[in-house]
Formats: sequence, C-alpha cells, structure tokens
Amino acid sequence: MSAVGIIVEYNPLHNGHVHHFNKAKEITGAEHAIAVLSGPFLQRGEPGIVSKFARAEMALAMGADLVLELPAAYAVQPAEWFAFGAVSLLHATGVVDSLCFGTESGTLDLLLPLARILAEESPELQERIAFHLRDGMNYPAAYSRAAAEAANMPGDESDVLQTLQQPNHTLGLHYLIALNRLGSPIRPLTIPRIHAAYHDEQPSHAAIASATAVRKMIVEQDLAAASPYIPESTLRILDREFREGRGPVTWNSFRGSLMHILLTGAPQDLAGLHEVTEGLEHRLRRLLFTLKEPTVGELLQALKTKRYTHTKLQRMLTHILLGHTKREMSPEALAQGPGYLRVLGFNGRGRQLLKRMKKTASLPVIIKPSSFEHPQLTLDLRASAAYANAFPHPTTQSMFRDYLEAPIRYPE
Amino acid sequence: MSAVGIIVEYNPLHNGHVHHFNKAKEITGAEHAIAVLSGPFLQRGEPGIVSKFARAEMALAMGADLVLELPAAYAVQPAEWFAFGAVSLLHATGVVDSLCFGTESGTLDLLLPLARILAEESPELQERIAFHLRDGMNYPAAYSRAAAEAANMPGDESDVLQTLQQPNHTLGLHYLIALNRLGSPIRPLTIPRIHAAYHDEQPSHAAIASATAVRKMIVEQDLAAASPYIPESTLRILDREFREGRGPVTWNSFRGSLMHILLTGAPQDLAGLHEVTEGLEHRLRRLLFTLKEPTVGELLQALKTKRYTHTKLQRMLTHILLGHTKREMSPEALAQGPGYLRVLGFNGRGRQLLKRMKKTASLPVIIKPSSFEHPQLTLDLRASAAYANAFPHPTTQSMFRDYLEAPIRYPE
Repeated sequence: MSAVGIIVEYNPLHNGHVHHFNKAKEITGAEHAIAVLSGPFLQRGEPGIVSKFARAEMALAMGADLVLELPAAYAVQPAEWFAFGAVSLLHATGVVDSLCFGTESGTLDLLLPLARILAEESPELQERIAFHLRDGMNYPAAYSRAAAEAANMPGDESDVLQTLQQPNHTLGLHYLIALNRLGSPIRPLTIPRIHAAYHDEQPSHAAIASATAVRKMIVEQDLAAASPYIPESTLRILDREFREGRGPVTWNSFRGSLMHILLTGAPQDLAGLHEVTEGLEHRLRRLLFTLKEPTVGELLQALKTKRYTHTKLQRMLTHILLGHTKREMSPEALAQGPGYLRVLGFNGRGRQLLKRMKKTASLPVIIKPSSFEHPQLTLDLRASAAYANAFPHPTTQSMFRDYLEAPIRYPE
Repeated sequence: MSAVGIIVEYNPLHNGHVHHFNKAKEITGAEHAIAVLSGPFLQRGEPGIVSKFARAEMALAMGADLVLELPAAYAVQPAEWFAFGAVSLLHATGVVDSLCFGTESGTLDLLLPLARILAEESPELQERIAFHLRDGMNYPAAYSRAAAEAANMPGDESDVLQTLQQPNHTLGLHYLIALNRLGSPIRPLTIPRIHAAYHDEQPSHAAIASATAVRKMIVEQDLAAASPYIPESTLRILDREFREGRGPVTWNSFRGSLMHILLTGAPQDLAGLHEVTEGLEHRLRRLLFTLKEPTVGELLQALKTKRYTHTKLQRMLTHILLGHTKREMSPEALAQGPGYLRVLGFNGRGRQLLKRMKKTASLPVIIKPSSFEHPQLTLDLRASAAYANAFPHPTTQSMFRDYLEAPIRYPE
C-alpha cells in the first residue's frame, strides 16, 4: 500500500494538473495519492476562485484519494514556510512514500545538493540574506543570491541563481530542504512542467494553460472560454459553484472589507500584523488618498516598489484582511509545524488510508473541526468564514461549512 | 443679529422638517438659523441614506445659514450624550440666542421643572437607574422610571413616565438638561410635531411623512414614491446622489464589512468596543451560526431581547463597524464636550455668522479638517471614509472629501 504525496492549490484544477497527477502515479507506481491543498487563500496572497471544498472536490474527481488542508498559517507564506508546512503534513501522515512535484527543468541534479547545504540553515546564510536585503534586493532575490553564494558548488554561481529565478525550482528546493530538516524518509521526485509557464496569462498550447490564464478567461470572458483547458469535472464543479453564488471569488470580492479595515484601523494596529513591515502601515494610509479608484488592484500597483514584490504585498493584504498578527505568524510559532491533519475529503481508498493513519499519523487527524482546538485551526476556520462572506450570494451554511458539514465523501 | 439653533439629522430632509424650520424662524423672529447635523451615522445607530454633505446641502437649500457637524462621538449615542454634544456646539458658537425643537406635546411645562431637577445628576438618580437595570429594564425605561421617581413633582409620576415614552420628549428633556449644565443663556422653545409620529412607517397625511416612512418608500419603491413628502430641493439632491452612485446607503451596504469584522475579530477585541457589554461579544459570535441569512437585519432580530432595545443594538453594531473603543467613548472622554466646530456648509448670511464667531466662539472653527488634530475629528474623518467606502460606486474623492474639498458655499 504505497502512497504518493502532492502539494497543490488547484485554482482551478486544469489539464496540466491532470497530466502531473497521472505522471506522478505512473513514475512512482503508487496505489494511493494524497493531496495537500491550500485553504481559501493561496501562496501568492490571492483568494481561491472557488472554495477549498470545491477545489478538494476537483482533486477527488481527478482521482486523488485523500485531500488534507494546508493551514492558513503556512498557505499564505514565502516558499520556505509554505513548503515546510506542506511537507510536514505529508510526513506526519506516516503513509506517504514519495513526494512528486513539477519543476521547470524536470531534474533534481542541482537542487538536491543545494538543499543538503541549505538545510543546515547556517547563521551565515541568514547574514548573507540580511546583507542583500539591506542592499535593496527584494526577498526572493536576496535568498537566491545568498543561496548561490552559500552553495559554493562546482560550476558557476549563476547556475544556481538562474535556476532559483524559476518559481517551481524555488518551491522544489524548499520541499527538499523541508524533507532534510524533518529527516523524512519520503522520496522526492520531479516531473517537468509542460507547455505553460507559471505566470503565463495566454494559453500557449491547445489543451494546456496556466491556472492564471484559466482564471483570466473565466473572470474576463466566461467559463466556456476556459473549457478547453480544464477537465469536465472541474467545469461541472465551477459551473455549479458559480450558479449557486459561491464564485468566482477574486480580490475584488474583498475590496469593501479590506478598504474598510485600512480606513478604520489605527496605523499602530496595522503595524502589529504579519508582513506589515518597515512603516508600510503609514505608506498604505498615505497611498489610499492617491488611488485613481479605491480598488485592491490600484492599491497594489501604488504600493509596488523594487523592494517589495507584488506577491509579498498581496500576502500582506491577505494578512491584514484576516487579522493575522506578527505573533501568530512568528518564525517561532511556524517552526513548531502544523498541529493537525485536517481532512477535506476522501474516497474509498482514502478511507483505507485514514484507517491506517490511525496507527501511523504523528498528528491528530481532524474530521470534525468543531471538536478540536488549536490556534492554527482557529485561523483556518476564520479564513473560511471570511472567504464565504465575500461570495456573490453569502449564506450561513457556506460561512460555517467547516462546522456544519462532514468532509466530502467521494464515490470510488 | 439673532440666531436660532436647531439639532437635526435630515435623513432625508422632508416637508415636516420644512414646517419645523419655518415655525422656528417665525416664533423666534431670528434672522439666522444654525443647524447642528449628525455626521454619516445617526442617533439610532443607522447610516444616513446619503452623505453628511448631501444632507447639509438639503439644510442650506431650505434656508439654514450655517451647518455644523455633530461629531461621531456624540451622534451615535443615547439621548443624554447626543443632546449634550449638540447643545454644547450651539452654545460654543457664542451667537445662538434660542434653541427650537419639536416635541409631541408642543409644551415645556413638564419638561422644564424636570430638567432642573435632573440636571443636578445626583448619585441617587444613578443608583435608581442602576437598580432598574438590574431589575431587567432596558436603559430608556430605567432612565424614565428613575427620573419619574427623582422628580417627586406635584402630580402623578405616571405623567413623567408617559411623557418620556415619547422619543422627542426625551430628547427635549436632555436638551434642557444640557442647557442647564452648561449654564447656557440659550432660550429653549418647542414646536408641536405635526402629522407623523417618529417611528411611523406609513404616511398619515397628504404631504407629511416621517423620515422612516420616506426612506422606506425610497428603498422599497423609488424616489418618485417619496416625492410628495419632500421638498423639490431634497428630491433634486437625492436624485443626483443616487445617479452618481453615492446612495441610497442602508445597513445592508455595510453587511460585508460588518460580518467580516465579526468573523475575524477575536471576542476579546470586540469586548473592548463601545456598547459591547455583558458578554455580548460571545452572544454575537454564537448567533452568527444561527442566522437564516447573514444580513444585519437578521442579526439584529436574533440579538434582540427585552433587555436590549433595537436602537442600543444598532448603535453597538455601528461602534463595532467603526472600531469605537470603550476608552474613546467613556463618560470621562464625552464629558469634556466636543473639541471643535466643524463647518459643513454655509450661505452668505452664514459667512457673516462665521465672521462674528471669530470673536464669540469658545471652540476652534474648522473649515479645513486636514489642518487640525483632535481625537474626535479622527473618528469623524474615519466614519466619513468608511461610509463612502460602502457607496454603490465608491471613489477616492468621496472617501476623502473632508480632506479634498472645502465646505459647501451655498448661494444666498
């Protein structure tokens, strides 16, 4: 009974994901597949286009056997913490043999030795990162540069730099570092990503488009425009969600609430929130006066500088929206790892996995969130309720689905 | 150069208000009229149907010469503080000779002696109020009962009780108490209210309907339905505001932001807000799960008990929405009185008043809020920005109009 783990956002699940999923099962020969899925808010600081439940259902429809939720504390974070949280969950199940992820190159030749060096987390690496940040680099650039210098590997530093400029290489590197730190027996494997770069907004292949491109088609055109690029099950689920007023959700859905918080929150309160650093609380307030339109998009554009990536700023706005404090998201708090395995859905084979996990799991398995308490879980339930509150047609049932409904039981 | 003061909300200004205004000028023979107008949120804990600027314009169009804003700290409060704030402003101008207000009876025979007794604010009165609150009465009932007992006047207590059950008598009483406490030379006068009780939802006279009834017609039918009950100027201003996406504003406009705050705020944070008393922070959270629809109306209905009036609960939700803390709204803070005279608009005669007020006013006169600092003003600007953020078509210009535009200068 072997299981492969995947770490996904499925925003929404498209043909490229199906390709990756099938390849993962093929090259590992695994009988089971466990997906770690981000909750309502995603790594780049955006809300999912539909709820975590709908995205979990897409995964189950494709053939995933068990879907676990990546807590909000890790889901909306830079690659290091995102990877640490997600890999920790797979490791904690005690049933995952391999971790399969896509990379631009399709090889771990450079990443594996680099991860071994970086997993030690020498004070030197931190100093180098701090040095480059002071020098005016944004965080990803500073990390890549410091990693390249720390690596001191045969060949040119520029190989490392170039590799880490590709987002899936960076994520992959941090998966490997996390496996190292956890001393996990999980075997890492990679699959080359096909036909669509991460950020591509235009589809470049007949049946494959990036999730960004798919969302753009849905929001700017309609669901039909996206249908060549998504499996029938995703189409059906999206159609149902939209018809029932549960999407599409975008940053625009939170415009009113986010602006309200920025307008009514005292700067000192904003300064207590995660990622609101270096006086950004004052900059935020000042910039509000200058926006052509009071939208999240205009605000992000006004905030952007060389120093802050679009992603860092979007994540900051997510933390402001959800009231995530610096204390809740401190390195000390995050280093403790996720505190539970929250089950979003499973099929018949997933039920077998859950049965086995009763013996193997090193964290509590949460089927009913209402009967468990954990500070991270409080944040997850809060994020889900606030997310559903922004639906075109918000309902009490949607806002409190975590409390009111059992995980999705998908037919085999 | 005599001036009459009036204390108004104009939500919206209707024919009954015009009647009152004309009578006030007639019986006082005053050459000038100064209106103290509540900002964006009103005494009963509701947003104005249009902005404070539009409502100030209605007042100017009717013939008011100078419109001053009642700070949010006093505008969304029980009758005592509302009256104290508004009367303090009129008193501080140094140019107001008389205060004219409507009452159900049209006489001050009972209210004047009662006010003299109650103005002393004996500890005994506070004890009596506390006693009746503990007994399960809501605040207005407890106050009336304690006042009736404290009055010990010739005639039956029940006269006092019956009188104070009428909202304009209660407001009037507190205007008189405030004048007493301030030792103000302003002469109080009353006019009987005509043809429409405060809460009436159905118009009962061909040209007079309550503001509640007028708003209901506008929101549930359209502006045309309300046109028999409002002057042409109000009609024109409302029409312009609605066409430009600045109304109609209702509690429903704040549904998303209010629910977001309730869903993401920790109970201990909610407990720090004004009017969130006796564990209401927990009750609020529990009740959210039980709402048929997640609307403000459903929430208010679920919250209501014998102990809490609808108005107290609406005010509490306003304070939660605007983040008004218990400290900011403490009796000690409010007892200091308003800290400035904020000018919303004036006509030619109003300009003369302002000129005279340079010598007579005991508080700073604020024409440009951006060049003045006061904790109460911070709350006012915040309330106005949050209010405009809930417009059907929110703009930066509307959100920061206090900073970006001068007061309204109305042609004579």
